[in-house]
Parts: sequence; C-alpha cells; structure tokens
Amino acid sequence: MSDNSNQQWGGRFSEGVDAFVARFTASIDFDRRLYQHDIAGSMAHARMLHKAGILTGDELNAIISGLEGILEDIRQGNIDWSVELEDIHMNIEARLTDRIGDAGKKLHTGRSRNDQVATDIRLWLRDEIDHIDQELNRFQQGLLGLAEREADTIMPGFTHLQTAQPVTFGHHLMAWFEMLVRDRERLQDCRKRVNVSPLGAAALAGTTYPIDREFTAQQLGFDRPTRNSLDSVSDRDFAIEFCSVGALIMTHLSRMSEELVLWTSAQFNFIDLPDRFCTGSSIMPQKKNPDVPELVRGKTGRVNGHLISLLTLMKSQPLAYNKDNQEDKEPLFDTVDTLKDSLRAFADMIPHVEAKKDAMADAARRGFSTATDLADYLVRKGMPFRNAHEVVGKSVAYGIEQGKDLSEMTLEELKVFSDTIEADVFDVLTLEGSVSARNHIGGTAPEQVRSAVHFARKTLKD
Amino acid sequence: MSDNSNQQWGGRFSEGVDAFVARFTASIDFDRRLYQHDIAGSMAHARMLHKAGILTGDELNAIISGLEGILEDIRQGNIDWSVELEDIHMNIEARLTDRIGDAGKKLHTGRSRNDQVATDIRLWLRDEIDHIDQELNRFQQGLLGLAEREADTIMPGFTHLQTAQPVTFGHHLMAWFEMLVRDRERLQDCRKRVNVSPLGAAALAGTTYPIDREFTAQQLGFDRPTRNSLDSVSDRDFAIEFCSVGALIMTHLSRMSEELVLWTSAQFNFIDLPDRFCTGSSIMPQKKNPDVPELVRGKTGRVNGHLISLLTLMKSQPLAYNKDNQEDKEPLFDTVDTLKDSLRAFADMIPHVEAKKDAMADAARRGFSTATDLADYLVRKGMPFRNAHEVVGKSVAYGIEQGKDLSEMTLEELKVFSDTIEADVFDVLTLEGSVSARNHIGGTAPEQVRSAVHFARKTLKD
Amino acid sequence: MSDNSNQQWGGRFSEGVDAFVARFTASIDFDRRLYQHDIAGSMAHARMLHKAGILTGDELNAIISGLEGILEDIRQGNIDWSVELEDIHMNIEARLTDRIGDAGKKLHTGRSRNDQVATDIRLWLRDEIDHIDQELNRFQQGLLGLAEREADTIMPGFTHLQTAQPVTFGHHLMAWFEMLVRDRERLQDCRKRVNVSPLGAAALAGTTYPIDREFTAQQLGFDRPTRNSLDSVSDRDFAIEFCSVGALIMTHLSRMSEELVLWTSAQFNFIDLPDRFCTGSSIMPQKKNPDVPELVRGKTGRVNGHLISLLTLMKSQPLAYNKDNQEDKEPLFDTVDTLKDSLRAFADMIPHVEAKKDAMADAARRGFSTATDLADYLVRKGMPFRNAHEVVGKSVAYGIEQGKDLSEMTLEELKVFSDTIEADVFDVLTLEGSVSARNHIGGTAPEQVRSAVHFARKTLKD
Amino acid sequence: MSDNSNQQWGGRFSEGVDAFVARFTASIDFDRRLYQHDIAGSMAHARMLHKAGILTGDELNAIISGLEGILEDIRQGNIDWSVELEDIHMNIEARLTDRIGDAGKKLHTGRSRNDQVATDIRLWLRDEIDHIDQELNRFQQGLLGLAEREADTIMPGFTHLQTAQPVTFGHHLMAWFEMLVRDRERLQDCRKRVNVSPLGAAALAGTTYPIDREFTAQQLGFDRPTRNSLDSVSDRDFAIEFCSVGALIMTHLSRMSEELVLWTSAQFNFIDLPDRFCTGSSIMPQKKNPDVPELVRGKTGRVNGHLISLLTLMKSQPLAYNKDNQEDKEPLFDTVDTLKDSLRAFADMIPHVEAKKDAMADAARRGFSTATDLADYLVRKGMPFRNAHEVVGKSVAYGIEQGKDLSEMTLEELKVFSDTIEADVFDVLTLEGSVSARNHIGGTAPEQVRSAVHFARKTLKD
Repeated sequence: MSDNSNQQWGGRFSEGVDAFVARFTASIDFDRRLYQHDIAGSMAHARMLHKAGILTGDELNAIISGLEGILEDIRQGNIDWSVELEDIHMNIEARLTDRIGDAGKKLHTGRSRNDQVATDIRLWLRDEIDHIDQELNRFQQGLLGLAEREADTIMPGFTHLQTAQPVTFGHHLMAWFEMLVRDRERLQDCRKRVNVSPLGAAALAGTTYPIDREFTAQQLGFDRPTRNSLDSVSDRDFAIEFCSVGALIMTHLSRMSEELVLWTSAQFNFIDLPDRFCTGSSIMPQKKNPDVPELVRGKTGRVNGHLISLLTLMKSQPLAYNKDNQEDKEPLFDTVDTLKDSLRAFADMIPHVEAKKDAMADAARRGFSTATDLADYLVRKGMPFRNAHEVVGKSVAYGIEQGKDLSEMTLEELKVFSDTIEADVFDVLTLEGSVSARNHIGGTAPEQVRSAVHFARKTLKD
Repeated sequence: MSDNSNQQWGGRFSEGVDAFVARFTASIDFDRRLYQHDIAGSMAHARMLHKAGILTGDELNAIISGLEGILEDIRQGNIDWSVELEDIHMNIEARLTDRIGDAGKKLHTGRSRNDQVATDIRLWLRDEIDHIDQELNRFQQGLLGLAEREADTIMPGFTHLQTAQPVTFGHHLMAWFEMLVRDRERLQDCRKRVNVSPLGAAALAGTTYPIDREFTAQQLGFDRPTRNSLDSVSDRDFAIEFCSVGALIMTHLSRMSEELVLWTSAQFNFIDLPDRFCTGSSIMPQKKNPDVPELVRGKTGRVNGHLISLLTLMKSQPLAYNKDNQEDKEPLFDTVDTLKDSLRAFADMIPHVEAKKDAMADAARRGFSTATDLADYLVRKGMPFRNAHEVVGKSVAYGIEQGKDLSEMTLEELKVFSDTIEADVFDVLTLEGSVSARNHIGGTAPEQVRSAVHFARKTLKD
Repeated sequence: MSDNSNQQWGGRFSEGVDAFVARFTASIDFDRRLYQHDIAGSMAHARMLHKAGILTGDELNAIISGLEGILEDIRQGNIDWSVELEDIHMNIEARLTDRIGDAGKKLHTGRSRNDQVATDIRLWLRDEIDHIDQELNRFQQGLLGLAEREADTIMPGFTHLQTAQPVTFGHHLMAWFEMLVRDRERLQDCRKRVNVSPLGAAALAGTTYPIDREFTAQQLGFDRPTRNSLDSVSDRDFAIEFCSVGALIMTHLSRMSEELVLWTSAQFNFIDLPDRFCTGSSIMPQKKNPDVPELVRGKTGRVNGHLISLLTLMKSQPLAYNKDNQEDKEPLFDTVDTLKDSLRAFADMIPHVEAKKDAMADAARRGFSTATDLADYLVRKGMPFRNAHEVVGKSVAYGIEQGKDLSEMTLEELKVFSDTIEADVFDVLTLEGSVSARNHIGGTAPEQVRSAVHFARKTLKD
Repeated sequence: MSDNSNQQWGGRFSEGVDAFVARFTASIDFDRRLYQHDIAGSMAHARMLHKAGILTGDELNAIISGLEGILEDIRQGNIDWSVELEDIHMNIEARLTDRIGDAGKKLHTGRSRNDQVATDIRLWLRDEIDHIDQELNRFQQGLLGLAEREADTIMPGFTHLQTAQPVTFGHHLMAWFEMLVRDRERLQDCRKRVNVSPLGAAALAGTTYPIDREFTAQQLGFDRPTRNSLDSVSDRDFAIEFCSVGALIMTHLSRMSEELVLWTSAQFNFIDLPDRFCTGSSIMPQKKNPDVPELVRGKTGRVNGHLISLLTLMKSQPLAYNKDNQEDKEPLFDTVDTLKDSLRAFADMIPHVEAKKDAMADAARRGFSTATDLADYLVRKGMPFRNAHEVVGKSVAYGIEQGKDLSEMTLEELKVFSDTIEADVFDVLTLEGSVSARNHIGGTAPEQVRSAVHFARKTLKD
C-alpha cells in the first residue's frame, strides 16, 4: 500500500499492515479461483439492492457492466491481483470502483465479506459437485460395459487374499459399481446442504437495509436462504461434509487401485493395462509400472488429510466468523482437484482393462475354491452344515498333502471322507457349476450379473 | 480348545491356535455387545431356511426357542463368553448346539460370518442412530425454550472474538439449533445407507441354497437387500459415514462448549451453570469448573480419531472380507457411546443455563458495537458505503483516544467527522435500535428470533 | 454421594454433582490402571514432605505403611472403586484417610491433582516404553536369525509390485530390521522427554511450601524436575510424541503385514506361516487365513486415530490445566496395548516363517529381472547408460512377444539389439550373478547381508 | 512427446503416455523446488563415478560445468520445465545431455531415480530444518526479552479458564518458552534420521558398479550412508517424523494464539497488539482483529492434515518403491512453508506485545485467586490440608454471597470459619505475597522467573 491504511477498512488504524503480515494473511493467491462466482454473487446482490430502492437503475447498470468487463479481463488474463487488497472480493470491488466510480462503492451496502465469501464458496462448490458427479457417472458407464463383457469370466474370489470361491469378473466389477452408487448418493445429499444462500447475513447479525434474501437466493439458483445469520457466516459443515464424501470416494478408488496393482503383477497376471496408462523406469529397462492406480492410491492420504485439516480448523471455534476460516479453502480446492483428476483417470482407463481369462480361470481352479460347494452338496444330502464343514476340511488337508485339488480326486478318494459322496459330486466341483449355482439377488452367477447391469443401466437413465 | 482344532473350522488344521494368538484375534470382548442383534438376525435366517424347505418345522422351533433361551441367559448374565470361540457369532452358535443338538449345526446353512457380522452391525447401528436422533431432538427442544426466553436479551456478537455488533442471546442459541438441524439431516441420510440387508451374501459370492433375501430383509426391518455379494461383505462405508456425521456433531458441541467455557469465565461472566454440572478442585477451594463442556470439547478428538482409524483401516483393502475389518467395531462403538453421553449431558444442562443479562448488555455497550449502524445511517443519508465506513473508522479512532463510545459523544463531536450526522443519529446508536433494525429472515431482531422458534417448533412436530 | 458435596472439594458448592454427570466426568474406570505409579508418586512426595519438616516421622510411617496396604489390596482385587471419588488419586487418598486418619489428609499438602496426574502418567509411560523396547529388541533378534538363515535365498525384488531385480530374502528382512532400528531410536528420544518430574508444580503456579523438587525427581528415577509449573501441568507433548512414534511402528508393521499377506497368497506362494498363527473360515473348509498380519495391519488405523485424537485435544487449549486433558489417557493406554500386543505377535511369529525357496527363485527368474544387469554390462563395454537402457528395453519388448526371458535368448537373438553383446553376457544374466554383483554397503549380495547381520548383532549387544 | 516413447525409459513401450496421464503423473510442477539439491547430489555422484574410474576427467568436468550452467539458468528463470520429462531429475538430466552430449547420458550410471529423489529430499529437508531451528531460536530470544521485562507483572493464572491463582506474566511466557525447547530438541532428533545418505541404493538392490557410498555421503555432508538398499528407497519415516514435530510446533502456536486472541478481547483486555499485525473489517469500521494468531491457529489443521496424509500414504505399502511415494512431497513442502511463515510471524510479533498491567492485576484480584494461600496458611498453623480446604471453601461461598473477595473480609468475618485465622493472614492474601511465596524451581515467583530467563539464555548460547 502506498499510504498507511487499507482503503477498505483503514479509518481506525494508525499504521499500515506489516509487509510480511500482508502477504501472510492475504488469500488472493488461492481464492482468485472464485472470481466467476464472486461476480455472479455481486450481480445478484446489486439487482436486489436496486429492487429494494437502494441503487438507482443507472447505478445498477454501471455495476453490472463494470462487473462484466472485469470478468472478461480476468478470463483474458488482463488483471494484476493485489496482495494489499487481500482477497478476491476486495480486488474485484476496488477494480470496479476504479472503472465506474462511486456506484462501485455502493455495491457493498448491506453485505459483508463474511456472507460474501460464504456465498461464493457455496456457488463454486455446487458447480464442482456437479462436475464430479458427471465423472462418477462416466466411470460407472465404463464399469457397466466391462462388467457385461466379462459376465461369464471366472476368477478366484478372495477373502484374506486367500482363494475363497470362484466368482465372475463381471460380478467383481459390479461390486465396484455399488461403491460408486453410494458415493453419488452421498454427493447429492451433501449438495442439498451446500445449496442454500447465506447472502444477507452480512457480518454476523443481518443488516439494517430492507434486503430481500429470497430474491438473491433465487437469482443464484439456491434452494432457499439460510435461517440464522450467525450460523450463516460461521458454518463450514458443507466443506467438511464434502471432504468426508471425497474421502470415501478416494477410499474406494484406493481399493480398486490396490486390486489393479495386484492384478498387473507377474504373480497374479489377471489383467493388462494399456501402455498409455503406465510409465517405465529410468534404470530398469523392462519395467511397465501401473502408475495411475498407484498414484491414485497415494492420493487417498491427501484427501483424508484435508478432512482432518478442516475438522481441526473448526474444532472449538466460537461464533461467528474468525480469521481461522480463511484456511478452509486450500484443503477444499485440493480435494476437488484430486477427485476430478483421479476420477477422470479411472473413467478413461477402466474401459480399456483387458482380462486375461485363462490366467484367471487357472487361478480359480487352484486353492480348493469349490470346497464350499462340496460342503453344500453334503448338506443337501442331509448332513448338518457343521459336520459337512469338518468332512471337507479333512479332504482339503489330504489334497494339500497329495498336491491335488478336490476336482482332481477320484470318487474313491473322496468317499474316504464321507460315504454320502456320489458320482454327481463332480458337477458341483466345476467352476462353472459353482458360480452358476449362486443364483440369487446379489449372487455371482452370470445371470445375476447381467441382471444387475440391466437394472443399473435403467437406474442411471432415470 | 480341548483338542488341537477349532470346532467350527478346524478340519484342515494340523495344530491349534497359539493361546496368545487366540486372545489377540478374538473379538468376543467387544462384539458381545451385538448379542441381541445377532440373535434377531439368526431368527430371521432360520425362518427363511424353513420357508425355503431347508429346515423342518421342528428344527425351526428348536432353533427359535433355543435362541430365546440364550437371549434370556445373556440378559441375566448367565453366560461365560469363550475366547476360543472367537466372537459373539460362534459363542452363540456353539451354545445353541449344546442346547438343541444337530438342529443347531444347521443354522449356519447358506450364510457365513462375513454376511452375519455385516447384518448384526447394521441392525445395531440403526437402533443407535434412532437413539442419538432422539437425544438431538431433546437437545433442540431445550434450545428452543431457552431461545424463546432470551429472545430480547442483548449480548455482544463477536467476530474474531472482538465485539462486532449487538445480537440477541436467543439469536445466538438459534445458530446452535441450526447446526443440530443439519446433524439430524445427515444422520437420516446415513441411516438410509445403513438400513440395507447384506444377509445372504454368505462368504463373498452368495450361496448355492435357494435363499430368499427379500424375506430376511423384510423380517429385520431393512429397506431392501444389498445388490452385490462381494460388496456386501466388504463394505464399511456406513461406519465411516456415521463417524463423519458424528465428527460434525462433536465439532458443533465443541464450539458450543468453547462458548460456555468463555461465558462462565470471570472475564466474560455472561452465564451461570448449575453447580450440579460442575466440579471443584482438590487444591483450590474457590474453584467451580465447567467440567461438562470442557470434557465434551475434549471428546471431539476422540471421534475425529475414530474417523481416521476407519478411513485408514479401509484404505487399499482388496475385496472381499479381510481380517482387518474386525477393527471396525471398537471405533464405531466408542463413537456411539461418546455421542450418546455428550448429547445427553448437553440436553440435560442447556435448559438450566442462566443468562446474566446485565453483564451481557454492559459488554454489548462497550466496543463500538453500533459502529456499523452509524455507517448504515450515513448511507441512508446518501453517502456511498465505502465513504461512510471511512467516516465511522475515524470516529472510532477518536473514541478510543477519548475513552468514549459512539453513543457517548455529543452531536458536535460526531459532526466533526461528517456534516450529514443529525440528532436522529442517537436512535440508531442504542442496542435495542440496533438489533431491532436487523429484521429480515435470519436477522437478529427479537421478532425474527421468535419467528424462527415458531417455525422450528412446527418443523420438529412434522 | 450420600450428602450434597464431594468430600475433597465440596465446601463451596450448594448442591452435589448430578449422578449422570458424576459418571460422565469420572475417570476411575480407566485411570485405575495407574495405581502403582500413583502410590509410588505419593510415597516419594510424603518422604519429601517429611524431609522438609512438613510431616513428622510418625505421619510419614503411617502414610507409607497405609499406602503399602492399599497397594496390596488392589493387587489382590480387594478394592471397590468409587465413581463419586472421580479418579484413582481421590480413591487412594480417601482410602488412606480411612485407614490412618488425619495423617492421610496431610498427604496432599503442596501438591495438586494437576501435577499428581502428570507425574503418574509419566512414570507409567516410562515403564511401558521400556517394555515396548524389549519387544522390539526381541523382534529384531528374530529377524536377524531369519535373515542369516536366508542370506542366500533369492526372490524377486519389486518396485511398483512389478518384478524389478533379484534380491536375497535375507536382504529384504534386513530392510525390516532397519525400520525397527529407527523405531527404537525414536522411542529413546521420546523417553528423554517423558522422564522429567512435574511433581511440585501443584495446581499451576507451584506451592508456598518449602518443597524439594530435586529430591522427589531423584526418588522416582526422573532425570530432573520440569522447569516451569504452568507448562508442567498443561504439557501433553510426551503423549503425542509417543503416539507419533507408535504410529510409525504400526506403519512399519502394516508394511510387513501387507507383504506377509501377499506372500502367503496362492499367487505369490513365497512363504508358509505355522497353522497356530492362522485361523479358518466358518463356511469355507479349505481356508487358512493369515489373521495375525491382517489384524495388525488393521490396527494401524487405531494408532493413527489416537494420534489425531490427542492432537485435536490439545489444539488451542489455553494454559494451564483444562478438564479436556482427562481425555489424554484412553488413547494413550490403547496405543500402548496395541503396540505391545502387535509386537509380541510379530516377535513370536517371524522366527517361524518358512521360505519356499523354489517358488521364490522361479518368480525371480520371470519378469526380466536381470534387465538392469544387461544394461550395466553394456555400459561396462563402453555404451552410455541411456543408450544401454534403450537397447535392453527393445530386447525386453522382443522377449515379451516371444515369451522368452533374457537368459533364454540365444546370443544371436541378443546381438540383434547390440553388437557389443558377447558370450560372457550369460554370466550376468543368472540370478546368483546378479545379486552377488551388488556388493557394496547396503547392497543385496549375500556377503553384504551377512555383514549387516553381524554389524547389527554387535550394535544390539552394546 | 513428439514420438511414442519417453526418451529415458521408452524402449519397451508400444505407445506413448496419454496426455492427461502424463500431466497427472508428472511431478515437475512441485518437485522443481528441489533443483539445487538435485544438482548438488548429481555433482557428488559424478565425482564419485570419476573416482571409481567410471567417468573420465573430461567427462566429469563437462558434467560439473554443465550442471553449474543449468543451476545458473534456473536461478535466472531461464528454463522451461517439461511435463513430458516428468520430474526435476529427468528435466535436469535431459538438459544436461542437450548441453554436453554423451557424457550427460553417463551421469545416471549406478544410480536410479529412486535413490536420487530420496537423496534430494533429505538434503533439502536438512536445510529447511536448520532454517526452522533459526526461527525457533529467534522466537525464543524474543520471549526471553519479554519475560524478563514482565517478570513482576501479575496476572490471573487459569485452570478450566477459571481464575485459579495469581501468576506472573513472565512466568506464563516462560511456559511458552519451554514448549519451544522441546520442539527444538525434537527437531534435532529428527535431523539425525534425515541426515543419512541413500545414494547408491539405486533402484532397490544396489548396483553392480564399484561405487563408493561413503564418499558421496561425505561430499554431501551426510553423517553416513544408509544400511539397506531396499529400505533406502522406500523409507519415508523422516518425512512423517518431521511432520509430527511440525504438528507439535503448530499445536504450541495454536495454544499461544488462543491466548493472544482471548487477551486482546474486550473481556480480557490483557494485552495490545501493534496495528501492523492486525487487520480491519470491510463492514464494521471499529474492528481491529488479531489476524495473525487467528490464522496461525487455523493453520494447525493444515499440518495435522499433512501428517495424516503421509501416514495414510505409507500404510501397507509393500517394498520397495511405489509410485504412491510421489505424494510425499506436497504435504512435506507445505508443512515446511507453514512452519517457516508461522514462526516468522510470531518471532516478529511477540517482542511487541504490550501488557496492560493494571487490567491484569485487577483481574487477578478478582475470583478468590488467593484461596489456596489461605488454605496453605491454615496448614502452616497445623490444620490438615483437607480440613483447611473445606474451611476456605465455605469462606468463598460466603464471599460470593456477599460480593467480597477474601482480602476484603474483616478478620472477624474470616474467624467465623476458623479460629486459627489471625491478623497475619492478610500478608498471604496479597497478590505479591502469593506469587513471591511460590519460590522454588519452576514456581511463579519473580525471582524464579528471572533465574529461568538467565538459565535459558545460557543454554541458548551453548
């Protein structure tokens, strides 16, 4: 600043802000990202002030066209942001006054930066939620295509990373799909709480001007005005809730990533990722690394961290606005960026995953994956489940010793463990028999997978 | 275990579990809390097995009455939990078989502990959500009573903990109320995702028995069965989402606590808490400490921590069930307990908060709290807001120097800063004038506070 | 309480504490774990009071023998803890006064619960740190034995979970060992800051009695008294620092666990864990699950969560003691328990890990693990590294196409990619050649592994 | 990239990296901050290669002068960073080869990006630790000056934010000083574990070249080389430990901030902050907000969040390097920046804090702050402490009723509660008497404060 005081609030001050403090407390380096939404909010506020008789028609026109000019300048990169003016709000207002004179000084009538910034961030986040939802939808569409294609592909299902029972690859992909269904539900639930208008709360108590909060809310596409001015300027629930939703999305992506990394290892060798989603090594010429899932898995930490940042930030804050709250933006911005980029990478990559069906089936055949089917067979023949479990356990112990899977034993070998076993046992010991038999809602049978894809497609359309 | 192997899964094993490992991996010490819901789930499963022709009528009757007897035993404390039997599910099943013989061994047909535990925890959490919602409602009712009583009580409103503008105490309390409104909304949104039935997903892939998942879902009051078996046994989103909701509730309570602690300090002296919510000091005989809000504020950390525990737990877990998931319970249990206790303490205490109205009003009169009213006055006389802000800033600087509030200056003194100021200025410089003038939706005027209370009462009833 | 006031601080109060509040604010349910250290601290304090002439010899004797009796009672389980007496300190003091009369009431002279609890928790934590250090040492000893045994065993080394270069299993285990070296260093660094005596800080400001803080510090084995009384009663750094150290220990165990889980999978099949460290499935008879590493991996979340609990707890707390601090104990206690149990499980299990050497070597032979060796060979023949990298990259692409590893190609095939390649190339393409060539400090050569084990043994002894 | 493959690792790839993936996986946007340390590391590596006979003297000279030129270019801003070249390492190496040809391609001999990045980040962090330590030292010096100036200034000491006992302001500031003592100790402990050299670990297993790890370690000022190559490239403990240390520093600053905010409120009114560390309001002309402490308090969340990011990142990562680890940098960088800025702000501001001594003393006189002194007086007259506590508790209850502090009661009034009270009681009821009586190590007596300052000055010098 050339003189000793800030032009927007300096009257009471005997010295200007220390240069380092000015930089330390300024937010323009990161909050300028809100410029479009700040201008939209100002236009709505100006229209309301005119409607309420506080601005003349000429003043309103000057403000609107002034703001339009500034918007254009910013889009074209013709703007020098000033740290002395602290934030995006002051920068735009000062520039408006430079352009149109005294009418610009009237724009801040009946509002404060406290309600202004809350309005901006809610408008911005609403748009970003919509963008993220689109990427989630695109990712889901890709999953449905792949799941349908792989509805009959058999792979080992794991619990404890030990072979458990055969499942279909399509069924596994539909498990991922279900995670995303919940993510989108949570995102919409969060959006409801984002999309309310704090404009008019002013500094903390409302204002003495005859403002019309319903009007500005409606102009800006908000569902309604907030109900308490103190709460309006201090509430950051929506940012925390959004980061919670984001942390779950990233948790899901980390789980998928882990599986993609496992599956592309030489040991699993279940899938192939296109070269364009991988990178190599500066020293080991043979390497093809699954960078995208690894990096996304790593980015989970980032969003968990931002969630904790915001929870720590708000803990024990007395009402109403405190400067601490300026720290709400960077974690929120980075969460949005991380979600958009990670989802884009997955939505781009997943449709191109190539299943190595033979390797999957070979793996499913190993590890006694149809042991449960044998137990169920015995139960159907009348044995209590717990006894059947014991019989099969002993057959498996024998198989490990002999290096034979259940389906590789002879009927005589099997009969040692229970007389109840007959020749029809071999039907239930095939992989196809095993997966097809799990034919109920949510089961792994190919028929169920196709039906789940069909149902999901219908739901997405609605 | 008497022999070398667990009776439920030991057939394949050549040696029993190490004694320390048995204790280390057992969950019975904490998951026995689920006993009621485990038994309810087993009864529904048994009825379904009978309906599907897998159990005879006699077997079903034996199971139901056996489970009823066990339930009664547990309620009466007549049960010895066994660490060798690992968890609540195995403990109850083993006891059932002891009681009724082979029919007991058939109960586990077509299910696995993986879907069983997911079912139990969802049933339990649903009930606890309903309990927490009731406490939130009770707390809200208390707030409404107090807010109505204090709708005209004037206190300083703070930003940056500096006196900002006068507000009404009722208005401040209604800001707290709004936080709780959002908490209850989030809790209901979470409940939707809790209340689905994983029963029938079995170990991970579904089962080969002709089960009826719609039937068990309906028996247990679930909205519907889950849609994918792999997802059903591995999904812990609902626990994380619940802890996120809980972290926000505790964040709100921490903010209220901070204010209660401030307000009971000798420096603020705004309120009095009844002795029965406070404790003393072992060394300082004069102390009366606001223990309840302090402790609740401290407990915020606990819930934030549990949220991180669960997010860390689920990060990068491959499908489907892994033993790691056993660690989902303690954080969830403690979050529920913390929420119930903290909300109960607040719901009990808040209606008995005594406002010290004189001290509040005195404080509001200090600190130039009506400076914004003076600026607004000047704007109404035609001055642009930014200029008015500057004029008032200078008056305040003069007031600090002279030790006078704005309302204590003479008209002559005020006129030095702007000719526009007339005798009618003193109307806007009173506390009552200031708060009453903020008379729009969400504003601090007593009329608005009463209207907000009225609206809230109506909403709670619906 | 039978009457309206707490016997230790009730004089100023007009009503007793609400029954629920009494339970809500009491800590006896968890802080009774500190009983031994509370009694040790009281004995040292009493001895100092006697030395300072505040207690007579008879009073001191009565107090010491009274406390010894109480210690014995507690050890034998002959004590009823009282929630009305809030915490372990008040419970013991009240019982002492019951036993020995007025002398008991003099024990609290010159101290407060604020310095008392800080003393107790530091004494307790010091002992637990020593216990944890012993378990870390035991685990390290087990690792050294295994690493020595497997110094020549070759396995694939991974980056990005893709085969990178052959390494020795002993080398891999020594990487784990190094993590534990740092853990123990950090634990000792933390111990220095735990082991200082806050006793004598009293409530917050010190005391008017002629106390001797050096004397009590020395009696209790502390390095020195703390230097500021306000800081002494409010400092919880040591608890946070301990949890940070714990979070890193658990992070290390989670990484080892992840590898154990991978290695026991059918896909990797690198090791076998004894049955006694595994459990089975209630539904799948063939399962043998690596429960111990899975559970430890899951417990990482718990300790990360406790760290966040404590950081959240202390954030923004004004000096000196606040009731919030009562919440420091449960996270700390559970962190200690989790570390002790998890380390015990690993220290018990690791020496019994069985390497499946053939499977490891087979895996190392696949995946072009000696590609870097070929590039290094070319560099030694004069080619710049970046060119050599390119040549080998093309050979690998050819190998993938042909399904041949580098060592399976003929010299003619290899020469297509570079004339520089001669018959001696096959020496560098063997696994043994590859690992032995990395023969410098920290390299994977068996010679280096043995030398690292030798060095580690010597260091542990010192 | 113009062609289909990355020049550093593309030989094996059939298609180039997708443009979005290239941007998504690149780190040049943030890791370019490491340029100086990357160049220093490369120079040391080149010198070692020459010493080992791998580079000729001419090659070494070309590399050194090439790197010097690049360093100069970067400092002058004459460089275009390329996203295609992924990171700072590849960018510099490619530019070097552009400048000096084939010798540049030899620089990467015997190392990998995995050990290179670990080396760079350790070198960088070591320098930043030293910078942060200097700021901590400067802050401590400021505190000592202020504490000495205010060694006799009396203020109320608080527990539970209730007036507890009088303390000196100097004593309170020395409590802050002690927090910083521990912070610096922890920072130095962390530095030991940062300052070891991973260079030579290569990709994960070491290298086949005759490298000299001791030489490069010494060239770069490291204490020693690391002891295991797998651990060297995968270890990120030092980053997590640094963030833990940082989280405690920020926790301390948050506590000081909270107190500064309280003390500048109209209610406490204990201190004044210079205008240049405060800002105003866009709407309320009277506001002077303590922005710096508020913002620092808010930034605590940021560092807690980064700590969680890194712990989440490393959880369950198998050895050795995974792409996830690229995510280690931004949290670490931002933690360093936050610490440096926040400490600078405090080190600049604290020496200019103005104590309002009269207001502090007035507050100390209220709230029965000498009640403990009265109890101690009674004990010195022979009453057991618990009885004395009860007597004083009743006097306080009487005082609250009568609106009188203890020192305002007559001897007759006091005698009602105990006959033991004599005229000399009034000596112990003065503020000065109270603080001076706490005259032992760590006590609040002015003499002790001066002695603590003296001791601290001596320690800082050593």
